Amino acid sequence: MTDIVTFGETMLRLSSPPGERLERARELDVRVGGAESNVAVAAARLGRDAAWISKVPDSPLGRRVVDELRGHGVETAVAWDDAPAARLGTYYHERGGDPRGTDVLYDRAESSITTAVPDELPVSVLDGAALFFTSGITPALSPTLAETTSALLGAAARAGVKTAFDLNYRSKLWSAGEAGDAYESLFPHVDVLVAAERDVDTCLGREGDPIDVANGLRREFGFETVVLTRGENGSVAVADGEVFEQQVYAADTFDAIGTGDAFVGGYLAKRVSGGDVGEALAYGAATASLKRTIGGDVAVVTPEEVESVVAENGGGISR
Amino acid sequence: MTDIVTFGETMLRLSSPPGERLERARELDVRVGGAESNVAVAAARLGRDAAWISKVPDSPLGRRVVDELRGHGVETAVAWDDAPAARLGTYYHERGGDPRGTDVLYDRAESSITTAVPDELPVSVLDGAALFFTSGITPALSPTLAETTSALLGAAARAGVKTAFDLNYRSKLWSAGEAGDAYESLFPHVDVLVAAERDVDTCLGREGDPIDVANGLRREFGFETVVLTRGENGSVAVADGEVFEQQVYAADTFDAIGTGDAFVGGYLAKRVSGGDVGEALAYGAATASLKRTIGGDVAVVTPEEVESVVAENGGGISR
Amino acid sequence: MTDIVTFGETMLRLSSPPGERLERARELDVRVGGAESNVAVAAARLGRDAAWISKVPDSPLGRRVVDELRGHGVETAVAWDDAPAARLGTYYHERGGDPRGTDVLYDRAESSITTAVPDELPVSVLDGAALFFTSGITPALSPTLAETTSALLGAAARAGVKTAFDLNYRSKLWSAGEAGDAYESLFPHVDVLVAAERDVDTCLGREGDPIDVANGLRREFGFETVVLTRGENGSVAVADGEVFEQQVYAADTFDAIGTGDAFVGGYLAKRVSGGDVGEALAYGAATASLKRTIGGDVAVVTPEEVESVVAENGGGISR
Amino acid sequence: MTDIVTFGETMLRLSSPPGERLERARELDVRVGGAESNVAVAAARLGRDAAWISKVPDSPLGRRVVDELRGHGVETAVAWDDAPAARLGTYYHERGGDPRGTDVLYDRAESSITTAVPDELPVSVLDGAALFFTSGITPALSPTLAETTSALLGAAARAGVKTAFDLNYRSKLWSAGEAGDAYESLFPHVDVLVAAERDVDTCLGREGDPIDVANGLRREFGFETVVLTRGENGSVAVADGEVFEQQVYAADTFDAIGTGDAFVGGYLAKRVSGGDVGEALAYGAATASLKRTIGGDVAVVTPEEVESVVAENGGGISR
Amino acid sequence: MTDIVTFGETMLRLSSPPGERLERARELDVRVGGAESNVAVAAARLGRDAAWISKVPDSPLGRRVVDELRGHGVETAVAWDDAPAARLGTYYHERGGDPRGTDVLYDRAESSITTAVPDELPVSVLDGAALFFTSGITPALSPTLAETTSALLGAAARAGVKTAFDLNYRSKLWSAGEAGDAYESLFPHVDVLVAAERDVDTCLGREGDPIDVANGLRREFGFETVVLTRGENGSVAVADGEVFEQQVYAADTFDAIGTGDAFVGGYLAKRVSGGDVGEALAYGAATASLKRTIGGDVAVVTPEEVESVVAENGGGISR
Amino acid sequence: MTDIVTFGETMLRLSSPPGERLERARELDVRVGGAESNVAVAAARLGRDAAWISKVPDSPLGRRVVDELRGHGVETAVAWDDAPAARLGTYYHERGGDPRGTDVLYDRAESSITTAVPDELPVSVLDGAALFFTSGITPALSPTLAETTSALLGAAARAGVKTAFDLNYRSKLWSAGEAGDAYESLFPHVDVLVAAERDVDTCLGREGDPIDVANGLRREFGFETVVLTRGENGSVAVADGEVFEQQVYAADTFDAIGTGDAFVGGYLAKRVSGGDVGEALAYGAATASLKRTIGGDVAVVTPEEVESVVAENGGGISR
Repeated sequence: MTDIVTFGETMLRLSSPPGERLERARELDVRVGGAESNVAVAAARLGRDAAWISKVPDSPLGRRVVDELRGHGVETAVAWDDAPAARLGTYYHERGGDPRGTDVLYDRAESSITTAVPDELPVSVLDGAALFFTSGITPALSPTLAETTSALLGAAARAGVKTAFDLNYRSKLWSAGEAGDAYESLFPHVDVLVAAERDVDTCLGREGDPIDVANGLRREFGFETVVLTRGENGSVAVADGEVFEQQVYAADTFDAIGTGDAFVGGYLAKRVSGGDVGEALAYGAATASLKRTIGGDVAVVTPEEVESVVAENGGGISR
Repeated sequence: MTDIVTFGETMLRLSSPPGERLERARELDVRVGGAESNVAVAAARLGRDAAWISKVPDSPLGRRVVDELRGHGVETAVAWDDAPAARLGTYYHERGGDPRGTDVLYDRAESSITTAVPDELPVSVLDGAALFFTSGITPALSPTLAETTSALLGAAARAGVKTAFDLNYRSKLWSAGEAGDAYESLFPHVDVLVAAERDVDTCLGREGDPIDVANGLRREFGFETVVLTRGENGSVAVADGEVFEQQVYAADTFDAIGTGDAFVGGYLAKRVSGGDVGEALAYGAATASLKRTIGGDVAVVTPEEVESVVAENGGGISR
Repeated sequence: MTDIVTFGETMLRLSSPPGERLERARELDVRVGGAESNVAVAAARLGRDAAWISKVPDSPLGRRVVDELRGHGVETAVAWDDAPAARLGTYYHERGGDPRGTDVLYDRAESSITTAVPDELPVSVLDGAALFFTSGITPALSPTLAETTSALLGAAARAGVKTAFDLNYRSKLWSAGEAGDAYESLFPHVDVLVAAERDVDTCLGREGDPIDVANGLRREFGFETVVLTRGENGSVAVADGEVFEQQVYAADTFDAIGTGDAFVGGYLAKRVSGGDVGEALAYGAATASLKRTIGGDVAVVTPEEVESVVAENGGGISR
Repeated sequence: MTDIVTFGETMLRLSSPPGERLERARELDVRVGGAESNVAVAAARLGRDAAWISKVPDSPLGRRVVDELRGHGVETAVAWDDAPAARLGTYYHERGGDPRGTDVLYDRAESSITTAVPDELPVSVLDGAALFFTSGITPALSPTLAETTSALLGAAARAGVKTAFDLNYRSKLWSAGEAGDAYESLFPHVDVLVAAERDVDTCLGREGDPIDVANGLRREFGFETVVLTRGENGSVAVADGEVFEQQVYAADTFDAIGTGDAFVGGYLAKRVSGGDVGEALAYGAATASLKRTIGGDVAVVTPEEVESVVAENGGGISR
Repeated sequence: MTDIVTFGETMLRLSSPPGERLERARELDVRVGGAESNVAVAAARLGRDAAWISKVPDSPLGRRVVDELRGHGVETAVAWDDAPAARLGTYYHERGGDPRGTDVLYDRAESSITTAVPDELPVSVLDGAALFFTSGITPALSPTLAETTSALLGAAARAGVKTAFDLNYRSKLWSAGEAGDAYESLFPHVDVLVAAERDVDTCLGREGDPIDVANGLRREFGFETVVLTRGENGSVAVADGEVFEQQVYAADTFDAIGTGDAFVGGYLAKRVSGGDVGEALAYGAATASLKRTIGGDVAVVTPEEVESVVAENGGGISR
Repeated sequence: MTDIVTFGETMLRLSSPPGERLERARELDVRVGGAESNVAVAAARLGRDAAWISKVPDSPLGRRVVDELRGHGVETAVAWDDAPAARLGTYYHERGGDPRGTDVLYDRAESSITTAVPDELPVSVLDGAALFFTSGITPALSPTLAETTSALLGAAARAGVKTAFDLNYRSKLWSAGEAGDAYESLFPHVDVLVAAERDVDTCLGREGDPIDVANGLRREFGFETVVLTRGENGSVAVADGEVFEQQVYAADTFDAIGTGDAFVGGYLAKRVSGGDVGEALAYGAATASLKRTIGGDVAVVTPEEVESVVAENGGGISR
């Protein structure tokens, strides 16, 4: 029986070496990453049974994604796409530094997952699972996938599997208005909302004191828990009338990509194994800070490392 | 004034290291390659003024292609595609060894060039050119591009620019029947036909003694010259009632990709600078043999090196 | 339910780059390998449910082994050794070329697995398995492990799990006499014997016509099947009065290490999925030939690739 | 018609990896760089037609320089030196960190360019150009080259091509006194002087308030414009009675080499395309700040990136 | 005649690349390091005749250690261990960054040196030497080596060779109590004690004002000189009633490992060549700060570089 | 007391990766090599006390040469050149493959050693040596060095040190006539002549049966021994009326550079330790064959490896 099941796209990531521009690089570092599999990897590495549902090409690149996730201990429940033109989403990545930021160049249109329908996915991995997670990237990838996302969230909810959803707004995929509408249509199936404060403002038009915003969302949409991530300002969560706050743990950043997913993975791993919301926020923040020191999208960490960060750094306060 | 102008797609090539499978590689070597730009590079490096017409995304990857070709001395006459989803064709490449061959995995659908129409291309580079070259890959990429290919070949022919065409059949792009029909519709605009013996058989249904086949094609379609490449068996050409034969120069193969394009580039470079067909075959064969010793799609050679291979190895006989 | 369960040590492999001696190398390539996990990887990649039982340090290096095997789809059933001095067996590897051979330098003494006893191993993975495999390396590693090997083979045989054993004589671990005695003490638990012709001669003192040798072994020890591998001379098998012969498929060798394990993995995968002994020999030989083209100890192949080698190359004859 | 033509030496740069000393490095990163070609590359990448005049060996290393500059879009107008002993200037580069600085080891004596005379250089590229640029490194390389530099500056001035000159004092090439004399002999041909405040002090013996210094130089030598670069203190320019000041844009420095040349390239590119001196200073400062984040001597940037830095950072004030 | 002779274990160091975890790295950087050879290398590079006594396997790895030390100019006086299972101590190294520290994973048990007895070591290199150095790591490696360490220190003292000893407490090798007892048993043979303030507290139970601590040690055990290193707080030394203090020179740290040994090597090199204690502290601190900027365990520096750091930074005060 | 002392230039070697042309390589592999130090390294690695006399710049590159030779166990007796423009000879190296050969591009003019005079060289290392070796490259480097070579050979001969000389003709350094004259002027000081059959023909105008040629040289110039190397045809030697012949040992060639020097190093090492001429030829041939399998100029081998090649391959016949 699985603790955490996630659903979404995982891409090939091709990065130029430090100080080298994509335009000129002669070698690219290869990794795989995607919000939902990043969450699954973090959870699996922190001791949870984690699975990931997706659709990938039946090609060396598709197998690479599966190999890498399995290597981290994630169960891969995939539909293999054997269409001749089946393609894996790809993104090119260039690390910057002021005044040049990190650059991400997507090449993900028409990837295999954009055609995924519930019937072809091995969704039986959801049976008896404790929690189902997906993010707002998934419904943005295609109308088909928007429907499939809704169907999976609904089925999970009906089967008594708790559901968690991270807004993860991507302006290159859709407009804020489209995203906001889509999110709201999914919220009836969602128990736990995770959202960047900025996305809540941009897509749902809510700003102000973060605790007020979180409480407002919770009341309006009936979430069990709302977690707001606030960048350098840490995170807050509201649940059952309680409020939790967590600071960021300082980190020397080697690679910032995947920090948010590491936070979610740590948070959910702790919640699923019985931690309270405050403990889970600390666990998520510690996982995120460790992720920053590591190349690639995923948090290659151990539970002992996460716990050591939490222990040495004190942590959040619950009021 | 340009000697040789080519038109076609150039892709990003991502190769796994020796002995490493694409499924597992952690680093990929980055090159660029495409049949028509490979021909242009060979011609430019052998001292001709060479230009390449194409359409590429206005992105680091599109600029990379342009940088690399310019670096070899090719004039790049490109339409920059600034559509947000503009993409550069890509191919993944894995070198094998018996009993595992070299593997090529295309990810080129919907690339920028597939939408190229004559009006947006900087075709003025053709004015006064000596020769225009494209291959059978170009019309295979999209119906739009098939029309554009025909239009450019026609315009070149009408403007008195000699035209050369290499069948270059790709079974992953279209069927032999589709290809054969398309080729034949273009032949009226073509002066010099280059073709692999195998493609002539597969797509045009002609087999038998290569000189007979070449003569048959020449008579039927009115080509000025027909060059048949025969793999390890060398090449033959027929022109003006003369027959030329050329053997292959032995080579230690480091990377076989682009060998045929190097042959065409060497052949055309020599013809354009006044060599006869026999000299051009030798030049092409020498360029091709050098290419095999070099990583990447293009023949990083000098005229001196090519001439040295021709001189030391004797060469073909003209009857 | 698992098809194939293997038991043995997997080591870290550190290789110097081509042309570079271990004494001078500034970078080492890192892989993992061990006879029994190599067999499990081949079987898993060829579509079988495969598991591997072992004991590894609870350290980054132990996790690395587990990650890599899981990545190939092998279920890892390991006892984690959290002793402070727990160590992973290591070997250094230098590719040569005539007149200098490939050099292997073991640093494997006192590794975690040498202390493994049945009670601590997650042997329940054997329940209902189709086949259990280990090799003659395992009992050579320590007296404790010799006992554990015997216990596992015996338990498997008693539970109706078929057993296979590859002599795999290592002269650096024990003498031919010690090895021969140990092998013979295990044979009563073994159904399928795989052996290099050379090891049979060295350790069991049998030489001569390979079919006679195989039949002799089969008669004396009551094996169901005996497979003899004969290097460049291919392989023979005897079973139920039938004799099978298989030639080697020609290969460009990039890395010869693991060739024998790939053969065994391919052979067992085919047998477990219903192939007859002759088909299994061909499958094993094809897997082995592909392995030679790939860096590392394991056969990173697909069933389609193996089948293509078998199909194109004809194969062995059954008399 | 070319916007900006530069003249000078370009060297091969060989750098040890991060944290590795030249004395011990086993691999060196290869780049090319030289003050004048760095300026040309920046200008070309920012949209100007830029050319570079030089003399290089007819060797793989000479071709490498030409390839790389052409790749960035610079027209290369070179005399090929086919003397058997022709050599390309080289420099070894080691990145440091406090208390060890960046180390540069020149091996440039007797390079091909030191023998360059006007007659052999393809100076026709200057015809109709908007601006000619060289730096104080060029006349320092040999007496012959000092004469050639003077001849080219003079010819440009006479042909109505505006001239710009950067002092670029190199104490390893000549003494401050020799340099100062040489500079002053060239000033009559120079319209735009760019100089580091430090070099003005060292070689021309002028220090004090930078605006006073700039105005003093302008008055005495009749420059149209004087630009003083002041390291962390930004830059100032005086022209036509106007004074311009520009701050430095903060940057995470990956590789500081070429920062000054990027500034000059950005400045001149903006001026040639019609920007006023203040806009050009901002453009130069932004190009320089981006350069710092990139490995190698040249500013691999786009106009959009430069403009984005200028837009977000405000910029200089004109009084 | 040798200036400085050291005795101890040198290990192979295998490091994962920046940002990469040991668990996942595909390549490891290879270096060699050990406290006593690090000291010898620093001294040799700073112009002293330095030798190192040890026992290493007669294998490529043992030769590698010897090659590398000889390369830095150290005379290697080693016993070659030709036992089949002879092994070189190894350590795996992973650079971190907050909140993840640098990780060191030892695999050094049962290495060749643990069996070294005086008779097999080429101790004649000590004849006429000025100074003998070892550290508290050496006696911790095995009871045999503890005896050998004592014997060598005693012999040196008796032969009039000055002796220096650095506590270098390693909690992974023994307890603080065991270490403290062992240290005290060696102190009668020691003239110069170097110790980290933290180790003095942990193992010898002395804390408080560092000068008081140093003086206390000196009085109780009769050392000629006591040097206490205090991390970021610099160092102090007491000798002949004089007190010396030295600050740390600021450094951009690329690799912190070996900093302490570089300090000792610089200190001893200066002392042996006639510098007073204060000059030696400055020399040691400068060597240490340079070491931090360089990858690997050893200080790849020149005397000029060390002197330049000392000169520019002022330095310690002697009261 | 030293067994073998050599004198000559050692250069930095910069090689492009396999399949990559120097014109395009982004990384270069760094090695050091020179005929005489290659001989010294081979001799030192084969157990002889070997020293190398030279003059190198006091720079990181000069130190690199010294480090690397010391690392192989060679005593480095160098004059450090602290002239500001002191330079180390360099060569660029590109591995080819038919029909493109290995390319070597020298950049060695005006290197430090070209100014070496006997007085500044630490020639005391010759005192009591058994053998002095230099090659025909050394006098070719400059007139000064030709005189110094003669002086050292003469001094060695007068001091009773045996002398060996390898013609090593380099057509890029001087003409065959100049070389021949220079060689003959040195022959009076030479005891053992080693020469490629081809060089004897080119420079000394002697061809024909190799034994006749060798005997002719021996008679005319009074050499003790003449060794002729004949490429794939092996080698012959004449000494004291005896004739020795040796075949080549087959080798998979990874890097052919330095093969001849490895032969000489092996030959001299064996002679100096008492082997007869026939044994020494076999030893030289075996060392040369091993060298071919290893990257770089020097034979990174052990005596055991050389002896194993000799033992397994039989060897030459003495008539």
